[in-house]
Amino acid sequence: MTTFGESHGKAIGCVLDGVPAGLEIDEAFIQAELDRRRPGKSAYATARKEPDRVEILSGVFEGRSTGTPIAMVIFNTNQKSKDYGNIKELFRPGHADFTYWEKYGIRDYRGGGRSSARETAARVAAGAVAKLMLRQIGITVESGIFKIGDVEAKEYRFDYALESEIFALDPSAEQAQKDAVLQAKERHDSIGGAALVRARGVPPGLGEPIYYKLDAVLAEAMMGINAVKGVEIGEGIHSAELLGSQNNDEMSKEGFLSHHAGGTLGGISSGDILDIKVYFKPTPSIFKPMKTLDIHGREVTCELKGRHDPCVAIRGSVVAESMAALVLADMVLLNMGRRMDEVRRCYGK
Amino acid sequence: MTTFGESHGKAIGCVLDGVPAGLEIDEAFIQAELDRRRPGKSAYATARKEPDRVEILSGVFEGRSTGTPIAMVIFNTNQKSKDYGNIKELFRPGHADFTYWEKYGIRDYRGGGRSSARETAARVAAGAVAKLMLRQIGITVESGIFKIGDVEAKEYRFDYALESEIFALDPSAEQAQKDAVLQAKERHDSIGGAALVRARGVPPGLGEPIYYKLDAVLAEAMMGINAVKGVEIGEGIHSAELLGSQNNDEMSKEGFLSHHAGGTLGGISSGDILDIKVYFKPTPSIFKPMKTLDIHGREVTCELKGRHDPCVAIRGSVVAESMAALVLADMVLLNMGRRMDEVRRCYGK
Amino acid sequence: MTTFGESHGKAIGCVLDGVPAGLEIDEAFIQAELDRRRPGKSAYATARKEPDRVEILSGVFEGRSTGTPIAMVIFNTNQKSKDYGNIKELFRPGHADFTYWEKYGIRDYRGGGRSSARETAARVAAGAVAKLMLRQIGITVESGIFKIGDVEAKEYRFDYALESEIFALDPSAEQAQKDAVLQAKERHDSIGGAALVRARGVPPGLGEPIYYKLDAVLAEAMMGINAVKGVEIGEGIHSAELLGSQNNDEMSKEGFLSHHAGGTLGGISSGDILDIKVYFKPTPSIFKPMKTLDIHGREVTCELKGRHDPCVAIRGSVVAESMAALVLADMVLLNMGRRMDEVRRCYGK
Amino acid sequence: MTTFGESHGKAIGCVLDGVPAGLEIDEAFIQAELDRRRPGKSAYATARKEPDRVEILSGVFEGRSTGTPIAMVIFNTNQKSKDYGNIKELFRPGHADFTYWEKYGIRDYRGGGRSSARETAARVAAGAVAKLMLRQIGITVESGIFKIGDVEAKEYRFDYALESEIFALDPSAEQAQKDAVLQAKERHDSIGGAALVRARGVPPGLGEPIYYKLDAVLAEAMMGINAVKGVEIGEGIHSAELLGSQNNDEMSKEGFLSHHAGGTLGGISSGDILDIKVYFKPTPSIFKPMKTLDIHGREVTCELKGRHDPCVAIRGSVVAESMAALVLADMVLLNMGRRMDEVRRCYGK
Repeated sequence: MTTFGESHGKAIGCVLDGVPAGLEIDEAFIQAELDRRRPGKSAYATARKEPDRVEILSGVFEGRSTGTPIAMVIFNTNQKSKDYGNIKELFRPGHADFTYWEKYGIRDYRGGGRSSARETAARVAAGAVAKLMLRQIGITVESGIFKIGDVEAKEYRFDYALESEIFALDPSAEQAQKDAVLQAKERHDSIGGAALVRARGVPPGLGEPIYYKLDAVLAEAMMGINAVKGVEIGEGIHSAELLGSQNNDEMSKEGFLSHHAGGTLGGISSGDILDIKVYFKPTPSIFKPMKTLDIHGREVTCELKGRHDPCVAIRGSVVAESMAALVLADMVLLNMGRRMDEVRRCYGK
Repeated sequence: MTTFGESHGKAIGCVLDGVPAGLEIDEAFIQAELDRRRPGKSAYATARKEPDRVEILSGVFEGRSTGTPIAMVIFNTNQKSKDYGNIKELFRPGHADFTYWEKYGIRDYRGGGRSSARETAARVAAGAVAKLMLRQIGITVESGIFKIGDVEAKEYRFDYALESEIFALDPSAEQAQKDAVLQAKERHDSIGGAALVRARGVPPGLGEPIYYKLDAVLAEAMMGINAVKGVEIGEGIHSAELLGSQNNDEMSKEGFLSHHAGGTLGGISSGDILDIKVYFKPTPSIFKPMKTLDIHGREVTCELKGRHDPCVAIRGSVVAESMAALVLADMVLLNMGRRMDEVRRCYGK
Repeated sequence: MTTFGESHGKAIGCVLDGVPAGLEIDEAFIQAELDRRRPGKSAYATARKEPDRVEILSGVFEGRSTGTPIAMVIFNTNQKSKDYGNIKELFRPGHADFTYWEKYGIRDYRGGGRSSARETAARVAAGAVAKLMLRQIGITVESGIFKIGDVEAKEYRFDYALESEIFALDPSAEQAQKDAVLQAKERHDSIGGAALVRARGVPPGLGEPIYYKLDAVLAEAMMGINAVKGVEIGEGIHSAELLGSQNNDEMSKEGFLSHHAGGTLGGISSGDILDIKVYFKPTPSIFKPMKTLDIHGREVTCELKGRHDPCVAIRGSVVAESMAALVLADMVLLNMGRRMDEVRRCYGK
Repeated sequence: MTTFGESHGKAIGCVLDGVPAGLEIDEAFIQAELDRRRPGKSAYATARKEPDRVEILSGVFEGRSTGTPIAMVIFNTNQKSKDYGNIKELFRPGHADFTYWEKYGIRDYRGGGRSSARETAARVAAGAVAKLMLRQIGITVESGIFKIGDVEAKEYRFDYALESEIFALDPSAEQAQKDAVLQAKERHDSIGGAALVRARGVPPGLGEPIYYKLDAVLAEAMMGINAVKGVEIGEGIHSAELLGSQNNDEMSKEGFLSHHAGGTLGGISSGDILDIKVYFKPTPSIFKPMKTLDIHGREVTCELKGRHDPCVAIRGSVVAESMAALVLADMVLLNMGRRMDEVRRCYGK
């Protein structure tokens, strides 16, 4: 996948290369996935309305993938870039304004430009295609919010998350989580949160030894999502507190007797449920005055206007799910040449 | 970097491509780095003695890199593979035995083979070359253990860690951490732990937008190390509990007024200190009986012999430091073509 | 560079990643380059009229590159796909119809789909950006036709080629070359040809040893252009007939005393003029009946209609020039980290 | 494949990643392939004797590949580097001495270093593994010399070439070709030549559209071999002189009725015999005085001693064959995920 586009440019989009030919491309499903991520639907996300209509430019013929690159584009319609005039010359704290300026010496100051979370819409479109492919071999990927601020889920119900305005996994924690978001919002502040991505039906053997380990590539994909600061596989950070006898998953004919590993061993999928936890920092755009510098090196006060998500984790959970689907789809294809008997079978020998 | 080799094969090694020409290659330093990772030095690591003598096969001439691939090899000398005879047909819980078998249908059963932590010696050798390069532009990378079991460091002293048998960052926590390791070892068990890797002197601008973000690539490098299950940048997981006003790092002429971001913004280095936390599960090799399966699908009991690290995090901290150095060296080179004025200057125009 | 799009889909386009920030993006120049390749201008190319208006979707702000991916798109307007109905089920000889069908089991039968030369418009747009960058460091890339059928140029005048309807390098051969094209066209046939691409001002040192040699990557880029069947660097094929004493280029303080090598030694640019010759087969689409198979394996006669270039080499010469520019731009960036002193200088150490 | 090593360093070698597990690794065959390339066997190659014993360091267990990287190393034994003392400071015409010096500012002056043809021994070892894999799915790759100077083969007998001291394809041209080599050698000169590589049993469908076309990647692999200056697929350069009606290969139920395309259409294999022609310049090392510069910019005379191949094409033909095998093996694996039905079948869905 290659994506392109800035938050306030003409369009964003992606090019997906390597999609196997003959996959039914359900455009309605791709749009539905984008709609899950789309802002403007509730009090818990930015009020910015982006219709986010995806248009497929290539690689699909008569409803099926042809094996050639699939280009998808989403034209930006509601850019309202005048909102951003006051930040033209200053570095918003917690944003990439400073680092882009230092690196490139030029910056698309109309919002985050390339570093805007808007770019993730293209990833969700790509992830939807990956999900269509994974579905054909029995792999499903789901996600939901398990934590906002210090309110944590006790149980994980992915079907419930699909219907929840904040993608909450635990109905009993949902209201407290919503309250935490609204409270932050009312105080012109924002709040952090965390998502759980779970994949089922992953066959054993996905992931390459050392260089393209499944867990490593998932970690890259997750940490590369805007605002993510921590990633765990399975027991994650907590495993550092355990003894080997507590953490090892014993096996029986029924499968693994516990699930600390989170679905990978040695960087290769074990066939067990795959669990990834992704932690998002609070949205850096808040409406309180903050000390900062401008591009001339002067100390100034940053006072933001505009419309922003009070909790970027919520919509981020859909992005994380999409990225996991993309990684798994890559791994499924990469894994096909793993054994000489498979190679021979594929070529009829 | 490409590495090769199995724990009980003839040799392990690596090929480093893209090292700039004219870098002084201090072989004694490379060996010293390997010696830090080398087992057999204390009660806190495996008693297995591997001299780990590195030999440079190519890419260095008269003490300097020539710009061509640097191949380094470490011959395996103390293989004692008969220790592993009893695991030939069973899947050790927590190990990659099962996943390699499922993937490849063939397995080098003499120890972990390719999935053995022994492979990481090659990474340390490569990381040492990266450090020599980084040093020339003022970047240093350090590491140490901040947590073993539930004993956590209160302060971070990297100079102290260098001298500590367990690379402890906090002298006041060191004894309790050592005790936790020995206690696990005496009970034929193992214990988890966590390392902090810190880079100083990182210039702003390292890391590419979206596809090769500094934090994302660091996460991949860290999660790809054996036994790692969680990675944090800066405030990490804790940032999910914060408000934007708490988590944003304000700026003044003196620099950042706080350090929650951990040295990256939008995936690009900010010039601030870079902090990465890496969490290791307990060594899966323990000497208690465990339920498992063999390659014929029979339920059997796994009773391991041999020599193993009671806490893989300790030596893992050197590996994490090396991987961070490799990532930073890559990013330093990748960043050179970022601006047209730099390109012109490099070509004298 | 990533390109996408089929000849008869909605659009074709490309995404250029890694363009240094701060490069002035002259849209008029990009369009002018596309216009050179554009069909419908003379009797020597297909009568198909494609306005080929390029639209930049991202990566450019206030006329300059920002360092982020530059996406460019060209919407297809004159598709006339009904012309292609009669080839829906048969394999046109010399085309990729058969191989795509064998590979993917699905085919966009409206023209060549992905394998259509139309895809090369996106490469020309990308090549134009590369040329803008190369110009800044004094590298120019030119091209022209030196051969059509057996009519070969005696001298190479790149300025003349720019004005020639068939991009002829030699005014004295131009009329005979035009006649050869028209004669083939009148006989419902097509004819082969060859282009010379020349780069001047290439600094010594471009190209990596062994894996990313300048000549090897140029060969890949050229052979990857539709209809190309042969590539030469410098003396090329003829060098196989020479003695070492004839072929070696001696050196003096004034530079190389001859130019057999064609600008590379050991895969690295020597600073001498870079010469690449690219040979195109005749357009496979001819209007004579040909024996072929259909997708059901039946022997049928292929009788093509539609509009096609009688000599694909002519417009191909612009594509070859563009690809050479893209390769050189890549090499310019890749070369920046070659020496430790350059790395230090870039980071102010 | 990654290779490493210089002609006069400790060793050369390669690391092969991605070899499917379970492939029988016939070490005797790998050695036999190396012996074909090995010098010192006849009057037509350099008298330098290199035993070229290959040692497998990893990735093979009990005679089979394990799916992990296969490292192979060949230690240099007969380096005789004192022969090269007189070229320490000058640029040998036709060699990469000048370009390496310009690029890196440092040079392993003991022979060609990294740019020496000695590096190709590692490619032959890797190619031998590729051939073992290809053989299992019915693909064979052969090669031979069809041209030396202006003496060209009239027929191609690959079985004969295997036995010929100069790998001559045509018994009736062999003596004249040998004479041309010896005559050049006697005059302290060298001579060019050309090899034909032919692959049979290539299934249709290998090669990716646009970015990893079979013919383009073959061209890169061939042009990347030392001394190669021209590459043709099928009819090659001659196709530029043909009409479409002459060059198109018509099809019947028996297959293609002619073979101008050389086995690829649109960059994808057609199932027909694959023909690649590779043209080598004469060895640049000749024993006649040549004008050149030294590293201080002074005009000097280059008078070479040492032992060199009078016709580098001869041993180069084995290298070209090996590179073709490596490219085909890559393509075989890459092609496995081309169709959704194959993906499903591979995962049992």
